[in-house]
Amino acid sequence: MSLVDGQYNGVPLSWLFPEEKQGWTGYVEWEKSPDKKRVANGILKSQKFSPIPEFQDGPLPKTNPILIGHRWKEYHAALGLKSIVEFSWKTVLKEKHDMLHVLDFPYNGETLPKYILGDGKITQNKHFFVRNHGGIPDIDPECFELEIGGLVKTPVRIPLKDLKDPSKFPQISITATLQCSGTRRREQIDEYPGDGDELINAPWGEGAIGTAVWRGVPLKKVLKIACGGVLPECQHLEFVGADTYFKKYEVYNYAVSVPWRKVRQSEEVLLAWEMNGEPLPKIHGAPLRVVVAGYIGARSCKWVCRINALAEPSFGPVQRQEYLYYNQQIGKHNVLISNGFSIQAMPVSSAILSPKTKDVVIHDGSIELKGWAYSGNGNWVERVEVSPDGGHVWYPVAQEDMTQKHYYAWRLWKIEVPVDAEGWLEFCVRTWDSSNNTEPTYVRSAWNWDLHVTSSAHRIKIYSVNRSKPRTAMRLKQLEDMGESLEPISKPLEFTLEKFEDYEAASQKYPREPRD
Amino acid sequence: MSLVDGQYNGVPLSWLFPEEKQGWTGYVEWEKSPDKKRVANGILKSQKFSPIPEFQDGPLPKTNPILIGHRWKEYHAALGLKSIVEFSWKTVLKEKHDMLHVLDFPYNGETLPKYILGDGKITQNKHFFVRNHGGIPDIDPECFELEIGGLVKTPVRIPLKDLKDPSKFPQISITATLQCSGTRRREQIDEYPGDGDELINAPWGEGAIGTAVWRGVPLKKVLKIACGGVLPECQHLEFVGADTYFKKYEVYNYAVSVPWRKVRQSEEVLLAWEMNGEPLPKIHGAPLRVVVAGYIGARSCKWVCRINALAEPSFGPVQRQEYLYYNQQIGKHNVLISNGFSIQAMPVSSAILSPKTKDVVIHDGSIELKGWAYSGNGNWVERVEVSPDGGHVWYPVAQEDMTQKHYYAWRLWKIEVPVDAEGWLEFCVRTWDSSNNTEPTYVRSAWNWDLHVTSSAHRIKIYSVNRSKPRTAMRLKQLEDMGESLEPISKPLEFTLEKFEDYEAASQKYPREPRD
Repeated sequence: MSLVDGQYNGVPLSWLFPEEKQGWTGYVEWEKSPDKKRVANGILKSQKFSPIPEFQDGPLPKTNPILIGHRWKEYHAALGLKSIVEFSWKTVLKEKHDMLHVLDFPYNGETLPKYILGDGKITQNKHFFVRNHGGIPDIDPECFELEIGGLVKTPVRIPLKDLKDPSKFPQISITATLQCSGTRRREQIDEYPGDGDELINAPWGEGAIGTAVWRGVPLKKVLKIACGGVLPECQHLEFVGADTYFKKYEVYNYAVSVPWRKVRQSEEVLLAWEMNGEPLPKIHGAPLRVVVAGYIGARSCKWVCRINALAEPSFGPVQRQEYLYYNQQIGKHNVLISNGFSIQAMPVSSAILSPKTKDVVIHDGSIELKGWAYSGNGNWVERVEVSPDGGHVWYPVAQEDMTQKHYYAWRLWKIEVPVDAEGWLEFCVRTWDSSNNTEPTYVRSAWNWDLHVTSSAHRIKIYSVNRSKPRTAMRLKQLEDMGESLEPISKPLEFTLEKFEDYEAASQKYPREPRD
Repeated sequence: MSLVDGQYNGVPLSWLFPEEKQGWTGYVEWEKSPDKKRVANGILKSQKFSPIPEFQDGPLPKTNPILIGHRWKEYHAALGLKSIVEFSWKTVLKEKHDMLHVLDFPYNGETLPKYILGDGKITQNKHFFVRNHGGIPDIDPECFELEIGGLVKTPVRIPLKDLKDPSKFPQISITATLQCSGTRRREQIDEYPGDGDELINAPWGEGAIGTAVWRGVPLKKVLKIACGGVLPECQHLEFVGADTYFKKYEVYNYAVSVPWRKVRQSEEVLLAWEMNGEPLPKIHGAPLRVVVAGYIGARSCKWVCRINALAEPSFGPVQRQEYLYYNQQIGKHNVLISNGFSIQAMPVSSAILSPKTKDVVIHDGSIELKGWAYSGNGNWVERVEVSPDGGHVWYPVAQEDMTQKHYYAWRLWKIEVPVDAEGWLEFCVRTWDSSNNTEPTYVRSAWNWDLHVTSSAHRIKIYSVNRSKPRTAMRLKQLEDMGESLEPISKPLEFTLEKFEDYEAASQKYPREPRD
């Protein structure tokens, strides 16, 4: 077998893996084409690809993008799909603004805290985090149709324009937070390195979460109106995306599923084409995506082109082999697929966005903190508490300092915490949801091999400088007079700390050793 | 004022700062020469020197030497003392073997754990840690004399050969541990950055400690026999070294002091010329050094050439402005010299030397740990305890697994700890001394601005792989069969984790969602 100049055994790759449908650029159908899949897998297994980069051992590069997805690009190139890679990055540049690019391909980018706090409870589309698992397809909405099959009374194909016709399907809007289960993963990595992944499990900070108003039709209504309902054996609804996914040198379409029981709650599983009153951006799944409120973001399948009613969860690797949650003692020495449970509904969690860890904060006896708090599955945020001392004293955020309650959305919060102490302090936040769930105390309390669900109380280190203390005020004045800066605090001062007379008087009055 | 080609205002530096005495190469007398000091300080204040390197923000360079002492070298060069820098590094290469060079000049090097554990309770001279504050002088023992003055009945000068004459002064040997109060500083830096210093406060690991048999004469006896004793006002004995020290662009000889009360305990303060049965190496203070048993290493003045009996502690900057211990809330915003207390006697502390943090340990249900335990000031180590679970369960080290008790020396220990659990575990050690002192629980419990005295329970992260577990044994076999390695653990496995039939059976038997 040989792969030379875009030809495989003399056959152009574009013949082997053609675009399936008129107007559906960047879409290859794998799941329905076992022969094509077999050839592609053969090609992948015959090639060498770049090693998976090791980024857990040291600090992350200070570049933006932070990580480069060489391997995933090479997988695409090996199948003649390089144009998907190029279109994807072009789309990032067009649709996104000022993101922290955690991984360039598949594109993963997080919202900077200033946009979360500045935008209010709704995250603007251009700032909304992205966790893609493959390239971005480019599908003409005019040509788009959704296929529904499996355990339904009547399999159908619905053109997008019919789906969007309010006389055919009732439309609703929901305010829902989407969150990657990798949010705050860096805290787990800092504690202990965990599993690597060929699709880089991005080292997320606190910004892999966002809230939008999504508009579309409830999947439940579409199943009922278009298909006459699901058959009694139906337990899960599978969503198949138009993007291409890889797992251990095999190729797939992205596929995940959610329980029928979840879909039956009309307002929870939406087929959406509008985000914050604007057409859904391509990077977020245009022309059509699923929004599964209260669940891990991975279930909200983008570029959804097929829905299958199944008797059990999807066998897509993302559903069965990824996003698993293990017992803490599980790792490379013993991990099995069947000993992790699938992450679906998201737990209560929160984060401090301002100040940032290691900040030097000059204040007059109190410090303002801001952040987000969220709980999944219809549990809403009831109370947010902030501790200025590592988790001993907890101050509650006032109701008026939190954004409004939603069943499926976060609350942004702020609080002014009295702070007397100076030097290095450890602040943390925890949230109580409407079912009285709260967060684990430490990262270690819930560390997990795949580094998912960092929901422990978020901790930051602040160097507190309390200007209301006379000695501190004096030092700040000294620094100003000498033209020296307080930061970086680890830079030693050029001037002598104390007048000799003062020092001498103190050491005479309180000598180092007892008198007798 | 101009400094050109080794000339200062046209006068060669070698005329300004000559070597004082025949056979005393690399020694300049500063403390008795205020005029010379003034000229030198003028030169220093007129120059620009390299900035102090920032090493607290990221991981340390993987080089050896880790840090380069540009600034201290430039201070020496500015005073025409570059030859001291050169002689010092030559001496390192000659007298030391296989050290972790933490800072090249002034030389700071730590003993590798393998030599601590391999050498038994005595650390070989060539492996013994070094914390120098200046360059190494090269003094001919034939020419050396010790001057004793201040509040003594009769000031004297004693040639080294007289001091070593057992008919004149009684000799003793003591087994004593010396420890830099910066030992394990890296743990404090990892927690929060602290003060920088123009003499780089070296980022020590667990090896800035060692034990030797020191031979010499008790200072008490010398004071009595040679000087007729000290005057009643004497409270401290000051030791002046032949090395040159700098503080905020001023020049000094190294000078420190210890209480007369301490010196009165004959076996505690020694003037030593022999280390482990060999002549004292130059790098350790030849021809003569002080050994202050149970105290911070900084008081065991090397190249001691003058001893002054004083009514109060030495005004040397090392004594008064360095090695201070602060309240935890003290930092750059408010630190004064007088609000730190001088570190003298060392507290109880211990360290795990094997395994190392982040090691993957494959075992059959128990793991052997080894390390050191020490307490200062004549308190000896009574009990060492190791926890395999972060500090909940504590296993005591058996007496037969510790080296013998000494009043002034560490005990090396080992223990086999039962370990069932797998994955990331946190081990820690703590020690109880003969006064029932033990160690703070966490680094945070006793973090300090100057990053001294890291005596909290030493914690390491171990990735436990328990081969006696069937599933683990199976995975190890799988890895062997596939020619894959378990390490690095963060590298994903190339093979599928589980046979499809096994996975499918498990997911049928225990489905993700309830039946009703």
